Amino acid sequence: MTDTVTLALTAGEPAGIGPELCLQLAAEERSAGLVVIASKPLLEERNRDLGLGIVLEDWAPGSVAARAPGTLSVLHVEGLATTAAGQLNTANSAYVLDTLSVATRGCLNGLFDGMVTAPVHKGVINNAGIEFSGHTEFLQAMCGVERVVMMLATDELRVALVTTHLPLSEVPAAITPARLTQVARILNQDLKTYFGLEQPRILVAGLNPHAGEGGHLGREELDVIEPTLEALRQEGMTLTGPLPADTLFTPHWLDNADAALAMYHDQGLPVLKFQGFGRAVNITLGLPIVRTSVDHGTALDLAGTGRADMGSLRQAVQVGERMALCQKRMGGQKLASGNKASNV
Amino acid sequence: MTDTVTLALTAGEPAGIGPELCLQLAAEERSAGLVVIASKPLLEERNRDLGLGIVLEDWAPGSVAARAPGTLSVLHVEGLATTAAGQLNTANSAYVLDTLSVATRGCLNGLFDGMVTAPVHKGVINNAGIEFSGHTEFLQAMCGVERVVMMLATDELRVALVTTHLPLSEVPAAITPARLTQVARILNQDLKTYFGLEQPRILVAGLNPHAGEGGHLGREELDVIEPTLEALRQEGMTLTGPLPADTLFTPHWLDNADAALAMYHDQGLPVLKFQGFGRAVNITLGLPIVRTSVDHGTALDLAGTGRADMGSLRQAVQVGERMALCQKRMGGQKLASGNKASNV
Repeated sequence: MTDTVTLALTAGEPAGIGPELCLQLAAEERSAGLVVIASKPLLEERNRDLGLGIVLEDWAPGSVAARAPGTLSVLHVEGLATTAAGQLNTANSAYVLDTLSVATRGCLNGLFDGMVTAPVHKGVINNAGIEFSGHTEFLQAMCGVERVVMMLATDELRVALVTTHLPLSEVPAAITPARLTQVARILNQDLKTYFGLEQPRILVAGLNPHAGEGGHLGREELDVIEPTLEALRQEGMTLTGPLPADTLFTPHWLDNADAALAMYHDQGLPVLKFQGFGRAVNITLGLPIVRTSVDHGTALDLAGTGRADMGSLRQAVQVGERMALCQKRMGGQKLASGNKASNV
Repeated sequence: MTDTVTLALTAGEPAGIGPELCLQLAAEERSAGLVVIASKPLLEERNRDLGLGIVLEDWAPGSVAARAPGTLSVLHVEGLATTAAGQLNTANSAYVLDTLSVATRGCLNGLFDGMVTAPVHKGVINNAGIEFSGHTEFLQAMCGVERVVMMLATDELRVALVTTHLPLSEVPAAITPARLTQVARILNQDLKTYFGLEQPRILVAGLNPHAGEGGHLGREELDVIEPTLEALRQEGMTLTGPLPADTLFTPHWLDNADAALAMYHDQGLPVLKFQGFGRAVNITLGLPIVRTSVDHGTALDLAGTGRADMGSLRQAVQVGERMALCQKRMGGQKLASGNKASNV
């Protein structure tokens, strides 16, 4: 059974489009087993309201997840308050986080081969008085790792980030040898583990325009990035750069590379989303588990209409499945060295 | 004669690919008159060495520029020292700047309808002891304007920048209401003047990831960008934003816009060059003259081989021609209000 995988699929914010996307996806052919982690009555309601006719089957550890089109395995999570599509309710925040905990624990315990997450709504969770800055940080804490790496991918392009959700003014100081080293090691290791690349070829962007132009447009390339990349090459990594970001994303470089590593959010993601609009998958690297995610929000205005685009969730499931299969074939994942949080 | 234009074409660094690209371009059909501003013996030498067989005709004010394929008008500039393809020579730096001065003066005096520049080599000019930070700054000074705006364009996408060649750490402080106002006015005015857009629709990126996410990821959007855009809308501009840079460059927004305004170099140009690799043209807005440029360097390693790609120069000439024609039809350009340098 190493050629099939079972993925946990968290339905996310109950007032958003997540629950119906999970149901709509269940109508399609699939090779991965899917277990939706959500309130079963919520799924039944959306199923009925949209006339989808999906057969919902209870799932328990040990059962085989439904794969047939039109069927969907459900692992029910308690605690949902009243919910209407499009109407946020702070009373549901604990329930939403419970779905994430159940999926994460299931992955860590080997019940699932990976998890795929539909969108949650950060704001309503915070309004409920719960500190929560996103899926990624939640999973990082639950898995006890010191650093995770955000990578967005389409079938043609992979872009990982050294820094993510920082004000631009805080980016330069955050590009330290320690962070760059950790991120590059995780990216390199996980491209091997989850994507089967024996010797990943990684293009690294500079921080400044023209990669600093020999120090004329900033010194971070000379002082931080180049020496760090050189040390990482000594470890055996195949790193090209620092390259000017506006030449990195051209065929001359991309055609012979497996991933690009951008220094910050808006240096790398505009290209990725331009290239793969609606087909981009958000992947969290550095975890001991497989985790992929849609690359859109809760779309409260579309919730309950059945008109939301399923493309990103479908892609997230397919990528999660491929990653999990690859990991199995590689004989299980190893954490990149040194990525265990010291307090775990 | 308002439907034809004459463009000055500076051949750039004599050791680079500029001279041969100009000659190769002259072999093609064209509707614009081209006057190459360069050393005539240099052009003759490259013409002979590469066996191009272009007929070089002396041009003087008042003559009609050659348009027939295989012919090229030349305005000879003195001062070239010995030159070999691929070998930089500091003794040529004054000559290179003279070609730019001649072209610029010719545009200001109405001899030419615009200028197109082949690449120069900043380093060798600086090594000659001449302060020179690029074509753009040189033209800005010669034309006596306070601010210019760099815009890169392909047939499908236009991206202008609020800041250009600044270290990333200096970008946030450079995004001031005054600069943003000036840049937006120039962009808006020049999209009318040179591109014939009656009411340009401009998408404006935020500075921070997710455009600051309501202040959680930086306050520049709230404190600087939003109020400035609001004031500019009161002037009658059609501005959308500030938008997250990674959603701005998607069809939902681009399909109904004429240009994107990015806050900094690596936020806007990677997408532009990914989209239009080899077909991007660099346009300087805010000048009282039309100026376009190739978007590549001197390529010393290719100089003299005839193998350099002419695509960007061809495109720069075509875009310069269209801009000059549009300006003529609009009845001459007006400088965006307030863009006259006070010391001129």
